[in-house]
Amino acid sequence: MQAARYAGYTGSMPRLAIHRLSMAHPGDLSALEALLAAGEVAARDIRAVIGKTEGNGGLNDFTRGYFTQTLMALLAQHTGEAPAALAARIPCVLSGGTEGALSPHYLVFSASGEPARGARGLAVGTAFSPPTPAREIGRAAQIETVAAAVRAAMAAAGIERVADVALVQVKAPAAQAPDPAARSQDAKVLMALSRAAAALGVGVALGEIAPERATEAALLSDLALYSNRASISSGVEVTCNEVVVFGTAPGWAEGIVAGVAPMRDLLDLAGVQAAFAQVKGEVLGVIAKGEPDRSGAIRGHRHTMLGDTDLDAQRHLRGALGAIVAAVAGDGRVFVSGGAEHQGPPGGGLVCVFARGE
Amino acid sequence: MQAARYAGYTGSMPRLAIHRLSMAHPGDLSALEALLAAGEVAARDIRAVIGKTEGNGGLNDFTRGYFTQTLMALLAQHTGEAPAALAARIPCVLSGGTEGALSPHYLVFSASGEPARGARGLAVGTAFSPPTPAREIGRAAQIETVAAAVRAAMAAAGIERVADVALVQVKAPAAQAPDPAARSQDAKVLMALSRAAAALGVGVALGEIAPERATEAALLSDLALYSNRASISSGVEVTCNEVVVFGTAPGWAEGIVAGVAPMRDLLDLAGVQAAFAQVKGEVLGVIAKGEPDRSGAIRGHRHTMLGDTDLDAQRHLRGALGAIVAAVAGDGRVFVSGGAEHQGPPGGGLVCVFARGE
Amino acid sequence: MQAARYAGYTGSMPRLAIHRLSMAHPGDLSALEALLAAGEVAARDIRAVIGKTEGNGGLNDFTRGYFTQTLMALLAQHTGEAPAALAARIPCVLSGGTEGALSPHYLVFSASGEPARGARGLAVGTAFSPPTPAREIGRAAQIETVAAAVRAAMAAAGIERVADVALVQVKAPAAQAPDPAARSQDAKVLMALSRAAAALGVGVALGEIAPERATEAALLSDLALYSNRASISSGVEVTCNEVVVFGTAPGWAEGIVAGVAPMRDLLDLAGVQAAFAQVKGEVLGVIAKGEPDRSGAIRGHRHTMLGDTDLDAQRHLRGALGAIVAAVAGDGRVFVSGGAEHQGPPGGGLVCVFARGE
Amino acid sequence: MQAARYAGYTGSMPRLAIHRLSMAHPGDLSALEALLAAGEVAARDIRAVIGKTEGNGGLNDFTRGYFTQTLMALLAQHTGEAPAALAARIPCVLSGGTEGALSPHYLVFSASGEPARGARGLAVGTAFSPPTPAREIGRAAQIETVAAAVRAAMAAAGIERVADVALVQVKAPAAQAPDPAARSQDAKVLMALSRAAAALGVGVALGEIAPERATEAALLSDLALYSNRASISSGVEVTCNEVVVFGTAPGWAEGIVAGVAPMRDLLDLAGVQAAFAQVKGEVLGVIAKGEPDRSGAIRGHRHTMLGDTDLDAQRHLRGALGAIVAAVAGDGRVFVSGGAEHQGPPGGGLVCVFARGE
Repeated sequence: MQAARYAGYTGSMPRLAIHRLSMAHPGDLSALEALLAAGEVAARDIRAVIGKTEGNGGLNDFTRGYFTQTLMALLAQHTGEAPAALAARIPCVLSGGTEGALSPHYLVFSASGEPARGARGLAVGTAFSPPTPAREIGRAAQIETVAAAVRAAMAAAGIERVADVALVQVKAPAAQAPDPAARSQDAKVLMALSRAAAALGVGVALGEIAPERATEAALLSDLALYSNRASISSGVEVTCNEVVVFGTAPGWAEGIVAGVAPMRDLLDLAGVQAAFAQVKGEVLGVIAKGEPDRSGAIRGHRHTMLGDTDLDAQRHLRGALGAIVAAVAGDGRVFVSGGAEHQGPPGGGLVCVFARGE
Repeated sequence: MQAARYAGYTGSMPRLAIHRLSMAHPGDLSALEALLAAGEVAARDIRAVIGKTEGNGGLNDFTRGYFTQTLMALLAQHTGEAPAALAARIPCVLSGGTEGALSPHYLVFSASGEPARGARGLAVGTAFSPPTPAREIGRAAQIETVAAAVRAAMAAAGIERVADVALVQVKAPAAQAPDPAARSQDAKVLMALSRAAAALGVGVALGEIAPERATEAALLSDLALYSNRASISSGVEVTCNEVVVFGTAPGWAEGIVAGVAPMRDLLDLAGVQAAFAQVKGEVLGVIAKGEPDRSGAIRGHRHTMLGDTDLDAQRHLRGALGAIVAAVAGDGRVFVSGGAEHQGPPGGGLVCVFARGE
Repeated sequence: MQAARYAGYTGSMPRLAIHRLSMAHPGDLSALEALLAAGEVAARDIRAVIGKTEGNGGLNDFTRGYFTQTLMALLAQHTGEAPAALAARIPCVLSGGTEGALSPHYLVFSASGEPARGARGLAVGTAFSPPTPAREIGRAAQIETVAAAVRAAMAAAGIERVADVALVQVKAPAAQAPDPAARSQDAKVLMALSRAAAALGVGVALGEIAPERATEAALLSDLALYSNRASISSGVEVTCNEVVVFGTAPGWAEGIVAGVAPMRDLLDLAGVQAAFAQVKGEVLGVIAKGEPDRSGAIRGHRHTMLGDTDLDAQRHLRGALGAIVAAVAGDGRVFVSGGAEHQGPPGGGLVCVFARGE
Repeated sequence: MQAARYAGYTGSMPRLAIHRLSMAHPGDLSALEALLAAGEVAARDIRAVIGKTEGNGGLNDFTRGYFTQTLMALLAQHTGEAPAALAARIPCVLSGGTEGALSPHYLVFSASGEPARGARGLAVGTAFSPPTPAREIGRAAQIETVAAAVRAAMAAAGIERVADVALVQVKAPAAQAPDPAARSQDAKVLMALSRAAAALGVGVALGEIAPERATEAALLSDLALYSNRASISSGVEVTCNEVVVFGTAPGWAEGIVAGVAPMRDLLDLAGVQAAFAQVKGEVLGVIAKGEPDRSGAIRGHRHTMLGDTDLDAQRHLRGALGAIVAAVAGDGRVFVSGGAEHQGPPGGGLVCVFARGE
């Protein structure tokens, strides 16, 4: 677990800042560049970037790689580190697909400054697991690895209790299938298994799922097991589990709060509103996960997301979930990602809102 | 105007019924067949059918034709009329595309029974304009033709005042462009012009738009002109303007009510909620129109609906608007259609809810 | 096996005719209607219809059902039989998707007239297997069932030797997966298994595949097993294996010939040309099968058909294969279908050309 | 005209080399990196890059920008120049979309070495026009500007006669439409107008089109005007007309030859074969242009490329044309681009083959 490195890097318990920035295209980091130039954000303070690019969100979505390459090149100019070293230290979690009402944007999480003695505020911690060999992806080993990484990231942030965790964002690896003949099929399944294993790992770490039930056999199968605070994406471009934990911790300055709530199905407007109701101030960022109900129906009525040859199920899902969350937020800059296996109730998902405290 | 024929057909002012029926595929009318067989609906009482089929909603969406062919063949078995004669008398307004949370379904509007003396309830009236020559589509002539048809349909229903109208649904013609070389381009533009002319016609008939401003030059151009109660679709398969008017009229039995409200933009959740707030009982059907904001942004944030080579702007729109309305309704059986030129505020649209009165 | 019924129906060995007809949309059978009205084709003589409609070719392609409903209603008017009875007697094999250079069209195979004593010409025979229960689809039972149906169809046509068979077209069943949660995934796999089993059945019947190797375990797995004369489609809309066999038989009038050749990969232009070189006269119809190479490469160079989130692999394949075959034919009216498991060499496929003899 | 700068840069008339390189994704330049590292290509010798990336080829295809950013960053490491300076000097013409049989790849054209006295071989010359203001795009001014740039590029290469030119590749600007409300519509039209103007400019410079007929009114209108040696792409990312000319010139070493031929329609297999027949040796690269026939039919049979809501017309076209050319080449590494206004016969296009001389 390489969280110690990160914990050592941060030095003192600092003040969290969130910048929500727009982009004209996936290679446009000019908004962050301006902040860096103006000194409003220091490159060395950036802890994580979570964003939505305007690709299709699938295997052949290269907007994520384009954004990441541009981001790391920009930060390298400011920190003097190599882009690869930065990518190995700063989680950059991107979800392709800004269907419907969604707007391309990214959240820059940074932390700086001295600890506020006696203070208690929203903290961010990160941890990178050791490289995950292909044979461990979507297996019991990954469940344990992610659980350990969550604990390491909590420790790095100084979050003391699992009840204080608001959200765990994971970027999980999905090695290319060894047999090229089975490529696209296996790649999709492997990505789902990796998300599932990571979600169970989060659930175990947060005490939401009993460790003895979080078995390999339960992956994608025992849908009663889920975490209401896990948001997982997987991709072939990462080789270890990158974990970002948000939660309340002593020593961190006040100023930012987070609300989180599960959605019991895609139409659970009340669930979305519940997350927003937990925070009162200006919204700084929104993260939502969801999935097309696998029964083929929502509240008893057939949906057509799973069998559309021309429009991928996840594009359907993001357009629908994104619009509902954006309508409640009154703002299309919402991070919405599909593939919510074991993340929130089955057929539903979860919503997390970051806001300025009042 | 051929509304007199229809008015004569109905005889007396009757009781409106709405059946919301699901389908397994666009050729599946078994739910209606069962109602006809059970005598719950009489084929001769059917005044209009409005539905959503699971196609792409564009030029090459044949699910609408498939449904219509199946419907008219079914009704022909029951009334003994030829399918073509039925199609010339019963408006069948279909919108392809059940993206995201939407569920394929159709609303069957029927009216039967003796007038309830002294009663006052939701009425339906229809009118078919004379065949519209291609040269009149999207021109001043169509604006006037539709306005006249709206008045004829109101008269057929016995609706006395424009303030009593809840919604006007129009299916407008869009002749194939004469020059095949310009086909797809012109077909799309012609469809938009036809919707625009029909919407202005409705606005004029309902007193929402001053007749002198409803000019040919205003089509797709003077976006300040719109009707908040017009829902228009256009298609190459119709050759005249088919008009269905819903509104309160004397002599019709109580039992069904309608609420309608404009949406000022795609994220106008309050607008959607306002339409639902106007009705209290069980929801029987929902109709919504909207459009991707042509400025390329919603509330100042860029959206990507208009420039996506792989996913048509209207598919984006329906998935987003449909999910918001379905989330408020708690039900995916919502009729959502794009192409809202002059129908509700620009970049927004409108929502109409039919419900059982309380 | 219900081939006897069909053999009995035909009475005597007749003259084959092929009409290649265009359509304006999937419900447009006006070209056939005109032939029937003119007496050029008698409805009772129609043995099979094979066509391409302009849908997406996938699970939600309803153009096939629309065409079939329209066809059977038309034939019912002429023969007095119920549409369902006609559908149970006349194979109607449709492939959705006219990507690129392809043109929507259908081939009507009819046979009529007295046997030409001493003649020898291209014959058509059909057979319907008994209804296939869901548990037998993609299993050993289906391999045997199809092999038996091929023999029955050969007998019905009077084809005496397997070497005389030019092509076997099968429409195989693909029952809806029982578990709705796994619907789209399983439906696709089940369709592939059904095509695979039918292809092995054809290969066994034609002596191309040793019966002892045509096992359940070989399905989609032992790619060395294939028939160079099998063209299979599968769909949830059929419940038994419908078989159409073309081949040379005594008693049939001369006049039409067929050429067939395998393609060793998607770029095998010489293979396509070989099929056309076998026939000299006017081309009356072309049938081709192919598939995206599962290795992810063609002749050592990566292709992107299998991992495109926005464009289905089969749409990629049909556009490419269709263009190559159409370029050789000089005509876009080519039946091209994907899903060529065990039909022609792996990663390749086969081409069959019907032409007027010289 | 900034060609003098380039001509000055090259110094002497050198030997042309073409490397055809594959990529694993649009940001993968490792094949070129290896050549540079091995000294097989010197970064300073690279004159132009022409490639196909696996995007959708439309407005929201960011694979071109991703590739270009990666390429220029790589070359900057080797030459010490800024990426922007390299982009202003080296034309990088990318076409998104590797539908069907096409394989992602790029051609690196480099020139180095002393002039071979008395030799005569294939030469490459480039020129960049001055920045084109938005108001000149798709106007008469652009026609003249491109004609002048072609002459400058010919001079830079030392090509003496227009008959010696094999192909002119142009990357033309397409300024963002000023009115964002009309964005996607206008952007597409503007891109087509820019390609049309550039094609007429090439035709005028090569003597294929009479200057007095190459008027603004002829753009997209007088389809009888075309160049059989112009291949144009346009994009919002360039601000001037970048021109690459290939042709035979004195002083250049022998070794590489080019064949070029028009295609009279999409199915013109003989046209493709004619281009390949002009060269005998190993094929080093292939460039083809084509377009969906605007009449909606090919050789009298309806195609469906222009009216498909789910699949862009250019994706249809590239899949079909690419497969035909690749089948003749026996290799999927073919540069195929749509939008062939005034480039080859209307509804057809052209093919250019680079090969090692024999």
